[in-house]
Amino acid sequence: MDAQTFPEFSTNYPLLLTTFMKRPVRYYPDQIGVVYRNHVSGEYQRFTWREWHQRVSRLAHALQQLGIAGGQPGRLGDRVGTMSYNTHRHLELYYAVPCSGAVLHPINIRLSEEHIAYTIEHAHDSVIFVDDVVLPLLENIYDRIKDTVKTFVYMSDKPGLPDTRIPNLIEYEKLIADQPAAFDWPYLHEDTIATLCYTTGTTGQPKGATFSHRQLYLMTLHGMARQSIANTPDFVQAERLGENAVPMLNTPLFHIHGWGSPFSTVFSAQKVVLPGTFTVRGFCELVEREKVTSVGIVPTIAAMLLEFKDFDQYDLSSLVNVGVGGGALPLGLKTKLEKALPNFRASSGYGMTETAPVAIGAFVKKHMVGWSKEAIDEVMVKTGLPSLGLEVEVMDEHGKPVPWDNQTVGEIVIRGPWVTREYYQSPDKTAEVWYDGWFHTGDIAKVDAEGFVVIADRLKDVIRSGAEMVPTVLLENLIAMADFVLEAMVVGVPDPVWGEKPMAVVSLRPGMQATEDDVIDFLEEHGVQTGKITKWMLPKLVAITPDLPKTSVGKFNKKAVRENLAHYLAFARDTARQPA
Amino acid sequence: MDAQTFPEFSTNYPLLLTTFMKRPVRYYPDQIGVVYRNHVSGEYQRFTWREWHQRVSRLAHALQQLGIAGGQPGRLGDRVGTMSYNTHRHLELYYAVPCSGAVLHPINIRLSEEHIAYTIEHAHDSVIFVDDVVLPLLENIYDRIKDTVKTFVYMSDKPGLPDTRIPNLIEYEKLIADQPAAFDWPYLHEDTIATLCYTTGTTGQPKGATFSHRQLYLMTLHGMARQSIANTPDFVQAERLGENAVPMLNTPLFHIHGWGSPFSTVFSAQKVVLPGTFTVRGFCELVEREKVTSVGIVPTIAAMLLEFKDFDQYDLSSLVNVGVGGGALPLGLKTKLEKALPNFRASSGYGMTETAPVAIGAFVKKHMVGWSKEAIDEVMVKTGLPSLGLEVEVMDEHGKPVPWDNQTVGEIVIRGPWVTREYYQSPDKTAEVWYDGWFHTGDIAKVDAEGFVVIADRLKDVIRSGAEMVPTVLLENLIAMADFVLEAMVVGVPDPVWGEKPMAVVSLRPGMQATEDDVIDFLEEHGVQTGKITKWMLPKLVAITPDLPKTSVGKFNKKAVRENLAHYLAFARDTARQPA
Repeated sequence: MDAQTFPEFSTNYPLLLTTFMKRPVRYYPDQIGVVYRNHVSGEYQRFTWREWHQRVSRLAHALQQLGIAGGQPGRLGDRVGTMSYNTHRHLELYYAVPCSGAVLHPINIRLSEEHIAYTIEHAHDSVIFVDDVVLPLLENIYDRIKDTVKTFVYMSDKPGLPDTRIPNLIEYEKLIADQPAAFDWPYLHEDTIATLCYTTGTTGQPKGATFSHRQLYLMTLHGMARQSIANTPDFVQAERLGENAVPMLNTPLFHIHGWGSPFSTVFSAQKVVLPGTFTVRGFCELVEREKVTSVGIVPTIAAMLLEFKDFDQYDLSSLVNVGVGGGALPLGLKTKLEKALPNFRASSGYGMTETAPVAIGAFVKKHMVGWSKEAIDEVMVKTGLPSLGLEVEVMDEHGKPVPWDNQTVGEIVIRGPWVTREYYQSPDKTAEVWYDGWFHTGDIAKVDAEGFVVIADRLKDVIRSGAEMVPTVLLENLIAMADFVLEAMVVGVPDPVWGEKPMAVVSLRPGMQATEDDVIDFLEEHGVQTGKITKWMLPKLVAITPDLPKTSVGKFNKKAVRENLAHYLAFARDTARQPA
Repeated sequence: MDAQTFPEFSTNYPLLLTTFMKRPVRYYPDQIGVVYRNHVSGEYQRFTWREWHQRVSRLAHALQQLGIAGGQPGRLGDRVGTMSYNTHRHLELYYAVPCSGAVLHPINIRLSEEHIAYTIEHAHDSVIFVDDVVLPLLENIYDRIKDTVKTFVYMSDKPGLPDTRIPNLIEYEKLIADQPAAFDWPYLHEDTIATLCYTTGTTGQPKGATFSHRQLYLMTLHGMARQSIANTPDFVQAERLGENAVPMLNTPLFHIHGWGSPFSTVFSAQKVVLPGTFTVRGFCELVEREKVTSVGIVPTIAAMLLEFKDFDQYDLSSLVNVGVGGGALPLGLKTKLEKALPNFRASSGYGMTETAPVAIGAFVKKHMVGWSKEAIDEVMVKTGLPSLGLEVEVMDEHGKPVPWDNQTVGEIVIRGPWVTREYYQSPDKTAEVWYDGWFHTGDIAKVDAEGFVVIADRLKDVIRSGAEMVPTVLLENLIAMADFVLEAMVVGVPDPVWGEKPMAVVSLRPGMQATEDDVIDFLEEHGVQTGKITKWMLPKLVAITPDLPKTSVGKFNKKAVRENLAHYLAFARDTARQPA
């Protein structure tokens, strides 16, 4: 418009990850910002924010030297793949790559080798940064990707290169050592793509979701804003940790931005504690030494901690904010955790790769602060309220929002500032999820009277019994609350009368004894009698088995059960009950 | 790009004030959202969020009926002027106007009538909404604006129209009464201009700063995010009010978005308490009845409250968050306030119309939480740290940031997501402030070792004494801390040796006795000896006078002193001191 205005520094000032990175080095240059514990050697590395930022700057120079080109809106920069645990180097890559205009592709090293190779080929990664302990995996797939990837960078705390069949391996520390310690970070356009993250279902090839700087910036900022309006129940001692929170990043950074933690923690100038990958000893040691205050864990990790023989030897009293999510928490485990970690709090949430991933989270509404601990605990594990700034609806088959009756189910649809726009180079896949102005999650939920979205099922797993839909995830989460249950899965079995009827496939915890009827009794007591499910949803068949089939990323593989139905039906017990 | 993507619902999802408005009505429809107390009649009006949103929707329909057209990026929608105190209707206008695409012009009714008429003409307001108590002011300027403004809307708690010379006056309540209670809020482009706010200096005509939806959204969101990383000093009882905060909006909504309060409070679904305009009784009554938790006041209001005869009759214990800003706080007043309002906290900040206005604010850095109350009090009234998301620098004359030495002064320059892009239809004025990629504030500051920006002066008021600059605002704030001082101003007086020398013009508090030397003694003790100023900055002249000249908006009018210098020099006393 006018030559005297600067829209790029006012109305259209770009929302960039660079802003997050610059803050701690400006205001806390000499404070420790990043702590890494090598989960193999147990050795520590500690960096002030200035040192960390200098390493990020050196890395940005090195990327340029490697010929990595930046992008712009509509044209992706070169892709940089990482095969790495939660290390300081991975965190350096999380900033150096996007802030210099290139695209970070955090490779999910828990995928099958076939899928890993596929994503590298599909993303067309120019360079791959690999941890020393992950090198064998890279060697296994090397032949399939060697024509695509030009350079491999080896990240290790020990100097020197290992014996390897990969010819063009360079050392990370040598690569950055002689680079300038300052980098002139560009004012990119905020729509420049920052990351490419692949999602996997149980079928088909992985799909790549792209995210721009703007999207990641806004996800982070809305998350922080939501914290500022979090309501604290009366029975909870209010804690305002602010910048003095010490988060430990347990969620792998190769799982969809580590749930956003590399962004919010750096912008908040909080000391970031990186454990490599989770080990019980590493967890306890880091909490004690670094006075970790905040950590999110999944039920499996919680169980491992409680069983750790040296658990009592550590002082974990700094932990004031322990969220347990990612699955249903068995009631017995919950009781034990409350004793062992007084500040632990179970909470549910929902997100997916395509939502970067923050979408729905536990929330105590303003009129609930006076409720009892039991009532609040119930609220916290109801899936939750949409994130601030996202539009989330549960739609019926006609595209109308379902009533907030805690009963009618529909598909969760989402739109908002950080929902992925498209799958990279997959317009057909994009068209399957983006239509009518909404991203369709394929997940089924109901909405209660308070507006809580409660996940009920995957669309493709839902069981249609008569005119009704049986919500399998809801059932699975209920069954998993039984102390005798290790894991549970519910699938539909063809039925001449109802079309389909639900069958529960259950594995028991080691050393536990239980019958098929115990499963139904538990559901009666904790599901039907509490109003969470109705009687007709009870599984008509229960199959107890030592192992549940899983996908390569550890999700339940319901498809495998449906394809081997005869196997399960052979030992499943009929649990249908007559009306009393 | 691709027909199957929806950038308007993903990568480019618009950041709109509409999002703020929709949240409370969705999640708290039946809770009281807005409380208004008429400061003349003392009567109350209370609205649930549903009722409030219905009124906003009816108003949006009415605006359409009045022919108010929306805008788009690069073309402003029709301007809607308001001449109103802090009422529920003003808050309705704050959303109905921008969210339907038009431009809100909150007219500063404390300007001179000439300036008010000028801004209405310059903005070319199509319609003006006026409070009943402000009608006489509108009548006074009616002849000057009647050819521009097509419609006048009269806002009153009492039905019926008054006798008036304004022919085309319509009643607000009648206007909206029969409109539909739901409005299909458009997904505007986020760059659509939402507000037009005029700024005044001591010279020249007011200039109009424009703000887009995106800008106001981002200012609000960054402000909320900053709250989430606020560090609480150890001696302060942590309070997490969240959505249960009850803010009273004291800052007039016609002062640059009421400092942002209409946005953050609504998005946070906090009960918004509107006092019309400040009265001591209204303040105390609203705090007691509505259990107000959070309020910001200026020193003058604080003094009025303490002198209120019925002050002790009210229960103000709900107030847990009392910020005092907007000027230096006399030491005696501070002590009294701490007794009367145990949760009061003095804090400084800096903002201007052009920054919408949030720019710099008090902040306790992470390593300061263990400091003593006295040390923290000092930190809180140092001007502060830049707002999260804004770039703020103090630049020397060569465009280089000054060192963080708490001494070297330079001009504050700012850029970031919510700095105004331009003065409306004033490219020349815009070019005076926007150059070299920075908005130039015209304010002088220094930066201390922690990065705190400390306001020292206005560029045009700065006194050049020899090769040094005397920071007049710093001196004024110090003098105002003396209990015997009501107000203080420091201006430069021509001097044959130094070029200029500082003269303090001081008024005393009623009933207080003090001499010119007392002023200098106070500065020696609280300024020189504490290291806040150097000895050579001490005023060489002090003039004690009953009244300080002010501009129409109540700012000190230094220009008037400089133009009447002989008058002040006639009774000023020489206070120059010999080196000891």
